[in-house]
Parts: sequence; structure tokens; C-alpha cells
Amino acid sequence: MNSFIYDIPVKVCFGENQLQHLGKELNRFGKRILLTYGGGSIKKTGLYDKVITELNNSGLEIFELSGIEPNPRIDSVRKGAQMCKDHKIDVLLAVGGGSTIDATKFMAAGACVDFDPWNFLNEQWAPIEKALPIVTILTLSATGSEMDCGGVISNPETNDKIGRMAPPMLPKVSFLDPTNTFTVSPYQTACGSSDILSHIIEVYFNMSTDLYMLDCFMEGLMKTVIKYTPIAMKEPDNYEARANLMWTSSWAINGFIDGGKTQAWSCHPMEHELSAFYDITHGLGLAILTPRWMEYCLNEKTVSKYVQFGVNVFGISPNQEPMTIAKQAITAFSDFLFKTLGLKNNLTSLNIDNTHFETMAEKSVKLGGLKYAFIPLDKNDVMRIFEMCLL
Amino acid sequence: MNSFIYDIPVKVCFGENQLQHLGKELNRFGKRILLTYGGGSIKKTGLYDKVITELNNSGLEIFELSGIEPNPRIDSVRKGAQMCKDHKIDVLLAVGGGSTIDATKFMAAGACVDFDPWNFLNEQWAPIEKALPIVTILTLSATGSEMDCGGVISNPETNDKIGRMAPPMLPKVSFLDPTNTFTVSPYQTACGSSDILSHIIEVYFNMSTDLYMLDCFMEGLMKTVIKYTPIAMKEPDNYEARANLMWTSSWAINGFIDGGKTQAWSCHPMEHELSAFYDITHGLGLAILTPRWMEYCLNEKTVSKYVQFGVNVFGISPNQEPMTIAKQAITAFSDFLFKTLGLKNNLTSLNIDNTHFETMAEKSVKLGGLKYAFIPLDKNDVMRIFEMCLL
Repeated sequence: MNSFIYDIPVKVCFGENQLQHLGKELNRFGKRILLTYGGGSIKKTGLYDKVITELNNSGLEIFELSGIEPNPRIDSVRKGAQMCKDHKIDVLLAVGGGSTIDATKFMAAGACVDFDPWNFLNEQWAPIEKALPIVTILTLSATGSEMDCGGVISNPETNDKIGRMAPPMLPKVSFLDPTNTFTVSPYQTACGSSDILSHIIEVYFNMSTDLYMLDCFMEGLMKTVIKYTPIAMKEPDNYEARANLMWTSSWAINGFIDGGKTQAWSCHPMEHELSAFYDITHGLGLAILTPRWMEYCLNEKTVSKYVQFGVNVFGISPNQEPMTIAKQAITAFSDFLFKTLGLKNNLTSLNIDNTHFETMAEKSVKLGGLKYAFIPLDKNDVMRIFEMCLL
Repeated sequence: MNSFIYDIPVKVCFGENQLQHLGKELNRFGKRILLTYGGGSIKKTGLYDKVITELNNSGLEIFELSGIEPNPRIDSVRKGAQMCKDHKIDVLLAVGGGSTIDATKFMAAGACVDFDPWNFLNEQWAPIEKALPIVTILTLSATGSEMDCGGVISNPETNDKIGRMAPPMLPKVSFLDPTNTFTVSPYQTACGSSDILSHIIEVYFNMSTDLYMLDCFMEGLMKTVIKYTPIAMKEPDNYEARANLMWTSSWAINGFIDGGKTQAWSCHPMEHELSAFYDITHGLGLAILTPRWMEYCLNEKTVSKYVQFGVNVFGISPNQEPMTIAKQAITAFSDFLFKTLGLKNNLTSLNIDNTHFETMAEKSVKLGGLKYAFIPLDKNDVMRIFEMCLL
């Protein structure tokens, strides 16, 4: 069992009517705010107006950067970092989902250096030693960016989509109001939940001796997603469902569940290549990849983890051959993603063929360190998994 | 579902060989250290020497306060607060279990005021607005004091045992090394686990609609205690067992599982009166009280929670009458405490009779706010529960 450092000092204001604390929280860091958001859906929902009212009532000076893309791009990061410098910003307020928050993190870091923020992500891997303080208001339960110090940025010029974690980019305060996710469409809700499940599975599927208490926690998180995602899709304003998904999304990836596990992730690096080349929704790509990856990695040595997953998460009867239970577990998981949530179940239906598989496989192995994953994967393994996703 | 603020910025260094970071962590707060500990068991185990070596190597100036009692007393708090003032202490380092850490918290707060620290706990309820920084090295998995901002202090002159929480008393850094609990006796291990279970049960038994994900987490924590306590009792140096119990003890009471639940606790206030009058081990008192309290509170309105507890924690078959499952759950829990862990199962065997029950009941209702508990309890209810504990 490995040692670890647990250090997640994010303050979370969870629930309805917490926005009344927004001004006070921002004022701890300064008066000049860079408000960042995406395509403007927060204007339609009324959240934008509420935020602006709070900021004005608290005597804060607001600068705005909108239009942050899904799969956020380095150009938005560059623009935000420059705005921070130009306007002597004290604190960044990201209102949105993971894309907006991820981009805002790199703006906050970019504001503190003289070089191009892409250098944080390309071969230079420039150190991220500080960042302006970040506060978030979450509108989509998925990436967990509201409670971790990581982010993923795309560079369309180079077909790169690269993630990085750095403690200075950890949000200081995050506002999690489940009602802010009531307007998330059933499809985006499904994709978000697929992302949450993948975050847990990337850690849970691990053969080393670890903390049983965390395995129980992960199983509880997965059961929560499985229980509440269909409810949230049918009843978008079901508070209980949205609240459970929201708090689960944060805990799936804030680092607590790792508990000393150090393996590289598997499906995320592969999916990043899919979104980098085809700009598809991250959670959809993960849904297509994960069951195939599970199938590919199942063998006599790994079967016990699949049994635990099947029995404890899907309630499959333990009184069967381990390999039988494992296959039932993969089927139950696939059925959840493709039947219950109704996600598309192959790449062909997204008009993706094998044209770039070799390059994508090469990059994911290199960028994702896949040889240190649950089952070490090389380029050929990844190509085979991509091919399995065509059907 | 209630809103809540999640804010637990304790840094935890978990595992073996983390003590190498001790000097660096203490140095963040200053050079002058008040080292606090209990009856000297840390000298026998060698932990004391390791700590002193680290402190000396890091150029820190050490002042010492030893002899902190189990059920720590206000006199120790007074002494420690005065030492902080006399020696201009920068940071307190508590090495021990919950008693040492609890007392150290009130020393750290007492160091910042001019009045008697008992005023934090008596009718005056003086505000706790600041405290010197606290670092802990945990040697017993039980109270969770290493990751929360509360503590309980006894005053033998008045037969008072009173708890209080205040954010400034939250430890800055806690070192959790499971090997430091290898020397905990089977009996103290059992009492510690009884305390952990009680912390969870005080929150879990709640009829309001709450976060299902947290119920799953609590069930996982309880299963962890049930799985590993007998192992740790039989094999005191089983790292996996000690590690699971240690990390579970912190998460049972750091506030995460509350998730907006606001009910008053039930068994803890009753037990505080038992220890205040008879100085018995806290976990033992809780073990005797909790199954009786469960029995007393079981009715048609509460039965569903007992069913959930029995099915999800003890694996009782759900295909039975709810009331049957509930009673089986209480029996399974009692059997775990009194048969598996071998704890004494009534007050008579501890030479406690009903002499003080009326006063104790009165005080626990008043100090514990028992009318806001799972099932509201008045003086007569509590006396009845105490009486059930005699047999």
C-alpha cells in the first residue's frame, strides 16, 4: 500500500441560495474580477444576471471573457491570460462546466508568467509555480474541475489535446448549486455521467492492495451515478438527482479516491485523441471506449476486479464462475451506457473511421503514459481497442 | 435537502515514512514548538525519539507538555495555554490519540485569549476566534480529532465533560502513519472502532432526504470497521487493517458525511455523562449505549433506516418484514460489539448503578440538545435508555 498526501483545501458552497456568499468570497482575493464563461447559455438561464447582480452589490469591478469552447482552446487561454495582465485582475470567476473552468485555470497560471501558456502543455512543460486565485460556479456535473487542480486544453493547429495538473490552479471556492444543472439536456447529462464513471473506473480498476474503504466509496459513487442519471434525464429539475450527481462528480476526481494509487489512466488518454482529431463530446468518446477497453484487459489475472465491480456495483450474483461474472459486468455496464442512457455505441455512427488510428494510438501512448496503466498498453493495443470501437 | 458549506483544509500525510516532512511542515508556522503528549507510551514505542530527532534536525526549539489524560482535563489545557504564552510558542505539535489532540486544540485557542479557557466550555461559551496553528501525529484511530475542529474536555470539579467545535482549532497538518497504531491493545482497538462506528451512526440514522452518495459512503465506512477491527485485534501489525481503520476514523467525523444534515447527536451526549461521572473509556460507553438507543428509537416511522442499515451493512436478507430486519440489524450490531470485539455489554459489569442517572440524563439533554436528535429525547427517555444499559 502506497503512502500519499491528501491536500484538497477547496471550499465548496453546496446547494441553493449559496450565491449570496459570492461577493464575500471574491472580496477575500481582491476587487478586480475576470468573469469567464462559454457560449452564453448562462444568459438564457438567468444565472448571468444573478451573478452580475451579486458582483455589483459587492462593489466588485467586472471584466468579461465569453465564448470559451467545449474542448477549450489555447487561444482562449492566451486571451484570458492577457486580459488578466492588461486589467490587473485579482481573481478569476469561472461560470460554466469543465471546459470553462479548465481554460480559466490556465489563464490564471498564464497571467503569472511572461511566456505563451501553451508552453505549460507542449514539450517544454514549463513549471506552473503560481496562479491567480480562481472561484467557480459549476453548471454541469462531469469533469470535477471545480475541485481538482487539473485541466485539459486543445490546440487545433497541432491536433493536440493535453491535460496537466498543478496545485496552484486548484479553485479556492466552488459554488455547487444543483439547480444550475436543471437546464442540462438529457444527452449532455448522459455524457457528463459517462465522464464521472470513467474517472472512477480509471482508479478503481487496479490490482494493487489498496484501501478497501476507498473501493467501497468508489462503488457507492458508481451506484449513485447509475441510480440518478436516468432520473435526471427524465426529470431535469429533480433536485435530489442533480445534487447527487453534482457532489459525486467532484469526489470522483478530486484525488481522495486515489489513496496512494499511482497508475496512469487508460481511457482518458485514448479519448483525448478522439476529441482532438474529431472534436466529439468527451463523455461520449469515453462511453464508447471504456467497455471495449474492459473487454481487452480482461484475463485470468485481472478477473477478480471485474467480479468485484459486477457484484458490488451491478448486483450480479457472486455464485458463478469469475469469468462469467466479469463478462456479465461488462454487459451490464454497456447496457447502462447504450440502452439506459441511450448513447451511441460505436465510432462508425459518428462518422469516424480508422484513418488516424495509428497517429492517435501513438500520441495517446506517449502523452498518457499508457505503459504504466492498469494493463500496460502499447501502440498496437490501443489501435486494436480503437478498432473494436468501430463496430 | 439542506445546503451546506464543505471546508476541510487539513493536509494529511498518510503512510509510513511521512515523518521526514514534519520539520518542513512545522517550519511553515514558526520555530518555537509546544510538543504535547499523554502518559509517555510514545517513549516506549520509540515515536518520541523519532519526533525529537526530526525537530532537532529541522532547527526547531522544543517545549514539552506531557501527561495529558484520557478524557483530558481542563487543568492540562490551562497549563498548555500558559506555556504557549510564557514561551511565545508558534505552533503546537500534538502526538497521541484524540485526548491529546483535543486538549491541544483548546490550549491553542487558550493561548490567544486573556481569560480561563474553561470559559470556552462553560455557560459563558466564550467565542473561539483564533488559535495557534496545530499539527498532529496520530497514534490511535478513534476520535477523528486529527481532521476536525472539535474537542471534548472534562472538568472533574464540576463532573462536566463538554465538547465544542470551532474552525480555528482545525489542525493544519496531520500525520497518519498506520504503524504508529501497531502497539494499540486489542481492547483499545475495539473501543476506538466503537467510537468510529458511533460517529457514523449519529449521522446515518436520520430520516430526512439526503445525499444517497453519502449514505453509500457511510455504509462503506461501517463495513470497513466491521471487516478490519477483528483483524487488527488479532494481528496488531497488519498494515492494511490499521490503514483502513485510520483513514476511516478521520472520514467518519470530519464533516463530509454530514452533507447538510443538522440533527443533534444522541449517544455521544449520553456517553459524555457516563465518562464524566465514572471516567470510563468513551468507546466502551458508546458500545453499551448505542444498541439500547437503537432499540428505544425503533418504530414504524424509523424502521426503514434500520432496514437500510441491516441490509447494506450487515448483509441481512431484504426479503423479510421490515420490523424483523430491523431487529436482526440491532442484534447483528450488538453481536459485533459484544461477541466479535468482546466488549463488556452492560453498565453493571462496570460497577455503575442508577445513582446518578437522573442528573446525567438532565445534563445530557441540556448540553447535547437531545430534543433535536434522530428521535427527540427528554430526561425520562434518557433515564430509560441508561436503565436498559444496566442489564
